[in-house]
Order: sequence, then C-alpha cells, then structure tokens
Amino acid sequence: MVLPYDDAYFMKKALQEAEYALEAGEVPVGAVIVVQDRIIARAHNLTEKLNDVTAHAEMQAITSAANFLGGKYLKNCTLYVTLEPCQMCAGALYWSQIGKIVYGATDVERGCGVMGTTLHPKTKIIGGILENEAASLLQHFFQKKRK
Amino acid sequence: MVLPYDDAYFMKKALQEAEYALEAGEVPVGAVIVVQDRIIARAHNLTEKLNDVTAHAEMQAITSAANFLGGKYLKNCTLYVTLEPCQMCAGALYWSQIGKIVYGATDVERGCGVMGTTLHPKTKIIGGILENEAASLLQHFFQKKRK
Repeated sequence: MVLPYDDAYFMKKALQEAEYALEAGEVPVGAVIVVQDRIIARAHNLTEKLNDVTAHAEMQAITSAANFLGGKYLKNCTLYVTLEPCQMCAGALYWSQIGKIVYGATDVERGCGVMGTTLHPKTKIIGGILENEAASLLQHFFQKKRK
Repeated sequence: MVLPYDDAYFMKKALQEAEYALEAGEVPVGAVIVVQDRIIARAHNLTEKLNDVTAHAEMQAITSAANFLGGKYLKNCTLYVTLEPCQMCAGALYWSQIGKIVYGATDVERGCGVMGTTLHPKTKIIGGILENEAASLLQHFFQKKRK
C-alpha cells in the first residue's frame, strides 16, 4: 500500500529545510511540524545568521507552530527533525507537550537520549527515519568546515 | 566591606523583572545578564503573552545578551535568574558556554538539578540568592491562580 503522508514524506520536507541551512552556511538541521497530515511550521537552524545559540530548527518550529495554532501546547502535533533534539530543544518540547517526535540521525554526543533529557510522559519518540540522508548532510558540512 | 555590585544587588534587578511578569499575569520569573558589573540584558517570562513555551526569562536574556555582544557565546557573563533554570534553559545555557549562573529559588520538580541537565564544563552555578523573595513571588502567583 502506498502511503502518501508517511514519516519518510515529512522527513523529506525537514531534509529540504536542512539543505537550506547548508546553503546558508549553517549546521544543516531542518524541522517541520505536522497536524493531521498538514505542515504548519517549517524551520532550519539559524544560529550563525542570528548569532544566537537558541535558534535551533526545533525552537523556531515550536514558536511558529504555536503562532499558527494560537495556543502554546502542541499535543496533537508531530515534529519531524533531521537530527535528534538536544537538551534545550527536548526541554522545550517537554513544555509544549508535543504528541510525537520523529528524528533522522542520532546525536551520540549531545542528543537528548544520551543526555538523559526528560520528555513529557505523553510524548512518543522514534528515530532513524532517513538517517543516512540527514547524517550525510551533517558530514558534508563538517568536512567542508575543516578544510 | 560594602560591595555595591554583589550577587544580591543583581538578583534584586532580576526580582524586579519577575515583578513585571507578575503584574502582567505571567509566572513571575525574571533574569538579568551581567558582564563586568554591567547589566547587558533584562527579561521576564512571557509565555502567556507570546503563547510560546520557549519564552522563558532566561531564553530571552540569552538572545538579548548575544545581540548586545554581537556574538553568540556568553563566556564572561553571569546570568542572575530568580528561579533555577529548567532543562530547556539549562540546555541553552550549555550552548552559550556562560561563565556563571546564579539563581534564587530552587525548582525541586523541574529544575536542571533534579532533572540532571548537563551544563557546560566551564559554567559555575550557585543557588539560594534571595530565594525567599523569589519563592514568595511564585507562591503569590499560584495561590492567586487557584482562587
């Protein structure tokens, strides 16, 4: 059966955002937030452009989705993000009570898993969706930066 | 010896910010960021007004201080905040590499201590500065809300 709006479909949209970040010289991480198969927020990392450590893709997507919904809780939403959220972003997602987090590549050094960040009890989390594509973008960025 | 710019001096400025939050119907938490005895950022919680879970006092103060300094790292800065930072804010402070965190009241449920959030290895943290004043503002807010 063909599923038009499966996790890979929305992760591709998040990867497109990560590509925009890469083109702009940012660490390539992208995110979208989805409600009932509809994308209500798109964002990519802007820490360099904004000179602001808080400008991760997820943080902007949370703010943008809340603006769209007119309320600060994202209970029925799913976040698709190309890299596993860090402590800050997972902490923000805790407050948002988001329904589900789907990430691509695992961040073995600073991801919320290895850091032991607490998510909201109602939040589901899965990883590994298009992880090679997400990791490849990050590797490309850091290899280029080292040269 | 009289110290004009001791921790209590700057915490009083953070408490003033918390009072602005209380007057506006927000959870009363305030913060200032200081470099060499100079306040470069002031902020208070705006989660209700902005409908945004990321609008904690600390997050806004970090963004504001980075704007002032023209760089995203806050290595030589001290954050004064009336309540112990949560996972999100501590996670943001981790990325900022802030020099020192001074907080007032301890958050025994959702503070970064009990949650086990990792701070940057160079960041010092102390709590309990004017904690009664900070806790009293929070108690006042939540008692009023319950009525």
